[in-house]
Amino acid sequence: MMAQLKFLLVNGVQVLRPIIFRLGHRYVRDDRVTMHIFLAARAFGAERAVYSGQKDPNMEAQFKELVTKWGGNFAVEYISDAIKQLTTWKQAGRELVHLTMYGLPVQEVIEKIQRSPHKKVIIIGGAKVQRSIYRIADWNVAITSQPHSEISALSVFLHILFQGTELERTYDNARFQIIPQAHGKRVIQTE
Amino acid sequence: MMAQLKFLLVNGVQVLRPIIFRLGHRYVRDDRVTMHIFLAARAFGAERAVYSGQKDPNMEAQFKELVTKWGGNFAVEYISDAIKQLTTWKQAGRELVHLTMYGLPVQEVIEKIQRSPHKKVIIIGGAKVQRSIYRIADWNVAITSQPHSEISALSVFLHILFQGTELERTYDNARFQIIPQAHGKRVIQTE
Repeated sequence: MMAQLKFLLVNGVQVLRPIIFRLGHRYVRDDRVTMHIFLAARAFGAERAVYSGQKDPNMEAQFKELVTKWGGNFAVEYISDAIKQLTTWKQAGRELVHLTMYGLPVQEVIEKIQRSPHKKVIIIGGAKVQRSIYRIADWNVAITSQPHSEISALSVFLHILFQGTELERTYDNARFQIIPQAHGKRVIQTE
Repeated sequence: MMAQLKFLLVNGVQVLRPIIFRLGHRYVRDDRVTMHIFLAARAFGAERAVYSGQKDPNMEAQFKELVTKWGGNFAVEYISDAIKQLTTWKQAGRELVHLTMYGLPVQEVIEKIQRSPHKKVIIIGGAKVQRSIYRIADWNVAITSQPHSEISALSVFLHILFQGTELERTYDNARFQIIPQAHGKRVIQTE
């Protein structure tokens, strides 16, 4: 097994793969949305994900099964105290990027974020985001100032961060692999 | 009221705003995901959306309320027979782009799609997509060949299609408008 790289190479520059922090997960009610967030985080080049709110072993198991099937080593971990964890990370020199429709337009801040050499944590809000998150975040970033979806916001942010290089990623230890087709489906089993 | 433009100007070229077709909506079970698809479609520059599956007046009403609040004229319509509608559109010269993890990589086909002058319909799958959709589609397009989310796929596709110009859109008749902030929330009521 080859270790997954900690960064993607974007125009010759190493851009660190961020950690995704999904806040305030609610058991059952948020199952699909949180699952989509984890899958999008993995597919668009994040390093790993953590979540707070209600611990959800079923969702974690379901996600783990998908990773085993499709490859790579993207892991998900539960964190009980979000603010404590974010404070610890911030003190350790990580930069916190909170995606929110109230923040500064991504197109105005992305260059500074890309240039910053610090490891990033991308915060994705849940049902109701505490004011303290807006304050602790180094960046509050809006992917349009319109209501849409935390799944959209995360995916488009990662795509802009990595400038499309994330689309070319391959995965170690994948049991299944898709062979792209103009019409139809083709999947090969690699072991 | 100023009419919304039928296209976005991308590097001096008019790129027509596509119609989004969400297949196979299931009442209650898909509420949030379909709603996120419509919101993402609106926020990332699509012209309007249609959906098939189970008709959902509650969801439509909820969405309409959001549009009234945030502006523009993005409309959602229910279509009972998806294949019939797609066939009609195809015969009328529209091009059908089906987003699927089994399709051709977006980075390899996007230029051809951008250059084509035909109005596009972007098809977003539901729980189980019929084989006939893969056949009727002019393009089956993958946003990575990995499992993630139809919401991600749509948003990133539109972002690539419009090359970021969609992030700068403004909305007529908005009752609420966000003033971007580095930290905190600011919303103004414009009437």
